[in-house]
Amino acid sequence: MTALALALRELAARPWQAVVLAEPVPLDALPTPALVLDEGAFERNLERMQVFLAAHGKGMRPHAKTHKCPVIAHRQLAAGAVGICVAKVSEAAAMIGAGVDRVLVTSPVVDAARAGLLAELSRRSTALDVVVDSARGLELLAAAVRPDDRLGVLVDVDVAMGRTGAREADTIVGLAAGASAAPGLVYRGIQHYAGQVMHLDGRDVRRERSLALWARVAEIVERLRAQGLEPPVVTGAGTGTYDIDCEVACLTDLQVGSFVFMDQQYRVIGGAAGPEFADFEVALSVLTTAISQPRSGLVTVDGGYKAFAADAGAPVILGAPLGANDRCEYRFAGDEHGVLLPRGDTLPALGERVRFVVPHCDPTVNLYDWYWVCRDGMAREIWPITARGCSW
Amino acid sequence: MTALALALRELAARPWQAVVLAEPVPLDALPTPALVLDEGAFERNLERMQVFLAAHGKGMRPHAKTHKCPVIAHRQLAAGAVGICVAKVSEAAAMIGAGVDRVLVTSPVVDAARAGLLAELSRRSTALDVVVDSARGLELLAAAVRPDDRLGVLVDVDVAMGRTGAREADTIVGLAAGASAAPGLVYRGIQHYAGQVMHLDGRDVRRERSLALWARVAEIVERLRAQGLEPPVVTGAGTGTYDIDCEVACLTDLQVGSFVFMDQQYRVIGGAAGPEFADFEVALSVLTTAISQPRSGLVTVDGGYKAFAADAGAPVILGAPLGANDRCEYRFAGDEHGVLLPRGDTLPALGERVRFVVPHCDPTVNLYDWYWVCRDGMAREIWPITARGCSW
Repeated sequence: MTALALALRELAARPWQAVVLAEPVPLDALPTPALVLDEGAFERNLERMQVFLAAHGKGMRPHAKTHKCPVIAHRQLAAGAVGICVAKVSEAAAMIGAGVDRVLVTSPVVDAARAGLLAELSRRSTALDVVVDSARGLELLAAAVRPDDRLGVLVDVDVAMGRTGAREADTIVGLAAGASAAPGLVYRGIQHYAGQVMHLDGRDVRRERSLALWARVAEIVERLRAQGLEPPVVTGAGTGTYDIDCEVACLTDLQVGSFVFMDQQYRVIGGAAGPEFADFEVALSVLTTAISQPRSGLVTVDGGYKAFAADAGAPVILGAPLGANDRCEYRFAGDEHGVLLPRGDTLPALGERVRFVVPHCDPTVNLYDWYWVCRDGMAREIWPITARGCSW
Repeated sequence: MTALALALRELAARPWQAVVLAEPVPLDALPTPALVLDEGAFERNLERMQVFLAAHGKGMRPHAKTHKCPVIAHRQLAAGAVGICVAKVSEAAAMIGAGVDRVLVTSPVVDAARAGLLAELSRRSTALDVVVDSARGLELLAAAVRPDDRLGVLVDVDVAMGRTGAREADTIVGLAAGASAAPGLVYRGIQHYAGQVMHLDGRDVRRERSLALWARVAEIVERLRAQGLEPPVVTGAGTGTYDIDCEVACLTDLQVGSFVFMDQQYRVIGGAAGPEFADFEVALSVLTTAISQPRSGLVTVDGGYKAFAADAGAPVILGAPLGANDRCEYRFAGDEHGVLLPRGDTLPALGERVRFVVPHCDPTVNLYDWYWVCRDGMAREIWPITARGCSW
């Protein structure tokens, strides 16, 4: 306990650096629910993506909304990433405060306070970029910067998703021209993210849909070029289309996020080789403990809605074949608990640990303060989730 | 910004006390998504519950898993609560560390490390209690305490829910006898919580079902009395049955939680007077900003799965009639966003703030670091959510 207490004190003093445990801790000794990162699998996922994208002449701009962890962001940059993405301004502040440079904010900002914060953050970083999708947003950014600032601006393009982004070509060209002309802003290019495609079932379905959308983006790039506004950066794509979107000539870099961890939602979308999308390993899991058995045929574990985000179905036992728990089925049982029902096998005994693949990694990570980073089945480091809760 | 920065620094130095903002902040100036607590409504809810229970000769033992906030726990104790509940040992540590005394841990513990932590915490508090529902759990507690400790033990009774608790009368009596006999443990009574009843639609349905379960508990109380193990405390119930369970003679105190805030899940269960359960006011809300409009007929706000827990449907605009948004309908659009679709009225303009009743308060609160506490439409204090993330 002393080594752990020391590590936690160190964590409190430097809340963005990895803490090496003085003595490795067996996973079964961790207080549960515990968020566990398999460092080997994580590193292999990172390398696999970087090598693949580099071989196709594309940059990797991983999304930090998935991990919210400067330790991971620094490793992604060290692996060759051209920069990292964040969803919100407060995440950018957390990352820049932890020395992570080259940050792109992928959601538009439409209030003066956050535009001002972005301008301030841009002075403390090598390259800070933000997307814009409205005249109002651009005006606020232009008003927030000083003439000698260099806040990067990308026009967010919405082809069909209907979440953020400008849809009309004239609007897009107008925003690009405005960003080019405004002192203190630097026009960097465009963003196109098609979240609605990422989890479509079957690689062929995703390929057809994604390339059709990119064809529309290519037309917009042509329009911009004709106006003297050729975008230096065309950024977008995600884990579900990473290998598909590499076929797109105009795309310069990919905003892949979940590939570092993988989750059940991505495992089931199907890959090139079969029904499982197995291009990346499951590196993230949540460890729980069987704490109660009120009746036979059921065991309760100590993780519920506060241990697993509930937007994407139930967790699945780690190591089970795709789409099914061979040992037993998990059902949410409120905020603090889940129940396991047998499915052809015995249930865990009281006190036994049960480890799960998470349904959806991003909002699940956002429930925890740190990763227990393990190698060879032992927790060896703590990586703080510094930007946890930075939803604003 | 200076007053706010000062408040945040103070918050960092004393992470469990209320921070009074040097200057009140208009809600429209808060960075969004923001978790907003209406202090007046909160205080009225607290007083209403305390007065009602006292008039029926029952104690209030509010569940802090709902709010995770020592400021609120202290106010509940000051209002007359007999103690507070927490779900997990780490929550108990956070509360006791913030000077909150008389804590009951409502989930069983079946590992030696957490049993040891409970024993240690019991030495630092006036009264710390924990439930037990297995021989293994009781053995671990008995082994963790010293003979002069006074860790309170309640037997968790499961009548029909099937989550935690012992079901067989012999087991319950055996655990009560074991707790009575163990040096360092103090037998305090029993707990019965019927979470499956709380959200049943219609007060009559809840009444019939809840009283039937309590009749079984009364039989167990009789069994214990016959064995010389009459429980001094019989604790249970929740917001959905608070007025119903006051009819139960053997019940001594109620573990009500959500009544301080209210959420959409509770609003729709029906009350004595009509289809809305309106005994308590909606005191909690999440403020968002309209940040994008990719096409007409749709506006995107800056709160998604990381702003609202997704286990209980979609948020509803604050002030809308029960079960419907008169202005527009919210749909989740990923981790960071939601889209608003018009329903007979116009959509908000870019930059406009939109405030929502949360679908389920407990796991939503667990996403935020603090409440913006408002009076008269101005944020005046920050109350830290000290036990956020304490799911272990």
